[in-house]
Amino acid sequence: MVETAPNLGDQDQSLRARKLAHSRAHVTETAWRLFLARGYDDVTVAEIADAAGVARRTVHRYVTVKSDLVFGHEGEIVGLVEEVVAAAPPGASVRGVLVHALRGLAARWPTSREEAAARAQVIAGSAELVERELAKRARMRELVVDALRSARPAAPELELAVWAESGLAAFYLASSEWVAGRAELPEALDRVLGYLAAQE
Amino acid sequence: MVETAPNLGDQDQSLRARKLAHSRAHVTETAWRLFLARGYDDVTVAEIADAAGVARRTVHRYVTVKSDLVFGHEGEIVGLVEEVVAAAPPGASVRGVLVHALRGLAARWPTSREEAAARAQVIAGSAELVERELAKRARMRELVVDALRSARPAAPELELAVWAESGLAAFYLASSEWVAGRAELPEALDRVLGYLAAQE
Repeated sequence: MVETAPNLGDQDQSLRARKLAHSRAHVTETAWRLFLARGYDDVTVAEIADAAGVARRTVHRYVTVKSDLVFGHEGEIVGLVEEVVAAAPPGASVRGVLVHALRGLAARWPTSREEAAARAQVIAGSAELVERELAKRARMRELVVDALRSARPAAPELELAVWAESGLAAFYLASSEWVAGRAELPEALDRVLGYLAAQE
Repeated sequence: MVETAPNLGDQDQSLRARKLAHSRAHVTETAWRLFLARGYDDVTVAEIADAAGVARRTVHRYVTVKSDLVFGHEGEIVGLVEEVVAAAPPGASVRGVLVHALRGLAARWPTSREEAAARAQVIAGSAELVERELAKRARMRELVVDALRSARPAAPELELAVWAESGLAAFYLASSEWVAGRAELPEALDRVLGYLAAQE
């Protein structure tokens, strides 16, 4: 005999989804509070679960490994990169596609400056996270090259590589300006792109 | 009583220097032969000494740690970077200084393509060397920012950072083209800079 789940009404389903999202946000916030106070390396998943008042397996429902709590936005950003590259105007050069995509990314970046600053601080304090961040950047470069190639299949590989490298460097520099509080992200990006575009 | 060394004539001193340079080159070549055949991680300093027919302490006269055999040119390149940045024409912009310096670097790069290709192969095969290479690149960026700042003290820090990042990315991309045999280093660099300079 197979027991079927009770057929939930739309209201019940939406309530359950909201509860889950709330619990997930609570666990993530608790983890960040502990990471910032004591450093990522010294905080265990068990301590995060205790501090959040949930079971350890609840934390593992949301993340496979502890570092997923820091790199949770990665999937979202991958989707965003593909979207903004695909949305570039039809006639644009590789450089044009990239610049258009970076502006779209800066306008829709999924975290606040406070979150980005906390993230930078926690990563800098852990060799494991610094390593994962570097590996993420290498994957990001591949992703940007692939997205640019889909958008401009006739462009030489070297041209795609040049703009993927320069574009990511521009974005990371702009992001540092923003995190340091010197400008909003879109302005910081425009400043960086302005320097990059200047001819002799 | 202090015994003084015999006063060597110029000929004897030059002979000794040539013997030392010869022995050093022989040890380095032997190490590279072993690294290429068996991978960097699996070759010990004792094995290098044995294969070169010298004492282990002779190898340690030339290098402090094994990885110095792979990164031995680093000091030379640091000097070269400072020199080519300082040699930029007086009126040039930050971008101009950087482009001029990269061309000087490509023209005077201290290794052959064969050496560069062997180096890339050996580094890719060892996690330890990949890590040292990444750390070297981070130091190189600081070095380029410092050299650009000395050359153009009035330029904004962000402009220096933009060109140090883009310049190094351009140089590494050109270097990959060269190592893969697709162009000579100066040509490869011009191609990369051409893509980077293109406006919409």
